[in-house]
Amino acid sequence: MIVIETIPDMTYFRLNLKEPVGFVPTMGYLHEGHMSLVRKAREENKSVVVSIYINPTQFGPKEDLSKYPRNLARDLAMLEKESADVVFFPADKEIYPTGYETWVTVDNLTKPLEGDSRPTHFRGVTTIVTKLFNIVRPTNAYFGQKDAQQALIIKKMTTDLNMNLKVVVCPTIREPDGLAMSSRNVYLSMEQRKAAPVLYKSLLLAKDMFAIGERNAAVILEQMTVFIQKEPLAKIEYISISDTETLAELKAIKKSALVSMSVRFGNTRLIDNIILGKSTKSEYLNK
Amino acid sequence: MIVIETIPDMTYFRLNLKEPVGFVPTMGYLHEGHMSLVRKAREENKSVVVSIYINPTQFGPKEDLSKYPRNLARDLAMLEKESADVVFFPADKEIYPTGYETWVTVDNLTKPLEGDSRPTHFRGVTTIVTKLFNIVRPTNAYFGQKDAQQALIIKKMTTDLNMNLKVVVCPTIREPDGLAMSSRNVYLSMEQRKAAPVLYKSLLLAKDMFAIGERNAAVILEQMTVFIQKEPLAKIEYISISDTETLAELKAIKKSALVSMSVRFGNTRLIDNIILGKSTKSEYLNK
Repeated sequence: MIVIETIPDMTYFRLNLKEPVGFVPTMGYLHEGHMSLVRKAREENKSVVVSIYINPTQFGPKEDLSKYPRNLARDLAMLEKESADVVFFPADKEIYPTGYETWVTVDNLTKPLEGDSRPTHFRGVTTIVTKLFNIVRPTNAYFGQKDAQQALIIKKMTTDLNMNLKVVVCPTIREPDGLAMSSRNVYLSMEQRKAAPVLYKSLLLAKDMFAIGERNAAVILEQMTVFIQKEPLAKIEYISISDTETLAELKAIKKSALVSMSVRFGNTRLIDNIILGKSTKSEYLNK
Repeated sequence: MIVIETIPDMTYFRLNLKEPVGFVPTMGYLHEGHMSLVRKAREENKSVVVSIYINPTQFGPKEDLSKYPRNLARDLAMLEKESADVVFFPADKEIYPTGYETWVTVDNLTKPLEGDSRPTHFRGVTTIVTKLFNIVRPTNAYFGQKDAQQALIIKKMTTDLNMNLKVVVCPTIREPDGLAMSSRNVYLSMEQRKAAPVLYKSLLLAKDMFAIGERNAAVILEQMTVFIQKEPLAKIEYISISDTETLAELKAIKKSALVSMSVRFGNTRLIDNIILGKSTKSEYLNK
């Protein structure tokens, strides 16, 4: 495994990577969710590139950029163990040099849900992902279902801009008690951590209601809200039942729906989601 | 020469093009300006791809999209003569399918000059050029100095987004009386056509003033304005003396400057520019 810190080195090294090239972009502080993406990339490609870059442009002015968790040594050890070929670890000044002023934006998909709470977040995501795709030039790129809206937006962007690669969405990896793995879980106090599985439990409640025939989104949302509100540490930011492609809010669920939410525990925002009406196998956001 | 009309065909055919690949994106209705780009591409590359696509997103709501001049048969004959390998001629519905919603924007460089008159123009240009670059994947792409701001913006975009290609800017080609070649010149009435060289003459006036030592931008702009205003058919939209990299307006010219203008003749907008203080050889916007 080689660690590359500059764009010219990455561009040069890329020339000798065997095709197909699988790519996993991360912000580091890796957990089993990331590792499941790396393993999938390893399975499906001759070369695997993982980037570790805490992208400043996807953090809002009041968000946790400076205290975002970091542990490069541990990250590298984990990636070595999964036989990644390249870790791309660039510096801010190379990614966003003085005078940087070009942005990639997706209009409608970025407006609801996370976009409503974090208005500049997805512009930062689509811009850094475009840059990384242009630098790494992967055949396949791997993203987690846990950030469902992000995955949909990146798929839309690659299609709209005719990017020459495939986006693969992999299932959310959870702790034994159901909490979706996230680098931000480290922010939770012991009490908050105990309460945090309420997100997934409320999603399972939605799943059960759907399974026994409930199709009225308002009824499901109401039950989920009541359930989460029983947990005094949890403050709901949004709960949504939306179309799995357009993210338009649904009144009646037909074939399928994305149930997604953001819930705060103190200053920590947790998100989670589940797809109703489709197989929960790895390909469910992959059409 | 092969004419390709779909994105999948272009992607497939691209696999067999010999490297390096030179690319000239056009809106058709070709003239000697375009042909000089094609010749330069032919000189510098093993394969030459020319696109002909009238990009709707770079036209404003009141602009001349529907009556933009077209002559595919003549264009193809001209390109055949210059030994282009591929003409990529896609349909609107393939480039911007229903639900299209992804944009590439460059912030500061797009605001002054043309951006001030045409607020959504450059967003359309950077978006279509990104798409065409992703589809054609050229080694070198050729643009005309006549659209100086566009050339600077595209260079900035390719740098900022780490696009893996070189942008080459080639000199403006002029009619014998100095009028810069443009597909839009066909809109001019005979009288307007006679008057139109006033743009270039005013640029030469600026060049002469600079040559004898004038460095005060206001003095040069004043002389140019008086000169153009003598032509009753010409209505100045802007005249500018700006930094050749940032496009910031200059008060005093130091080493170099971009003198640029937009002048209306009836409904027809003509633009032209000249660089002061650098060689007027082909590389002057290429650093």
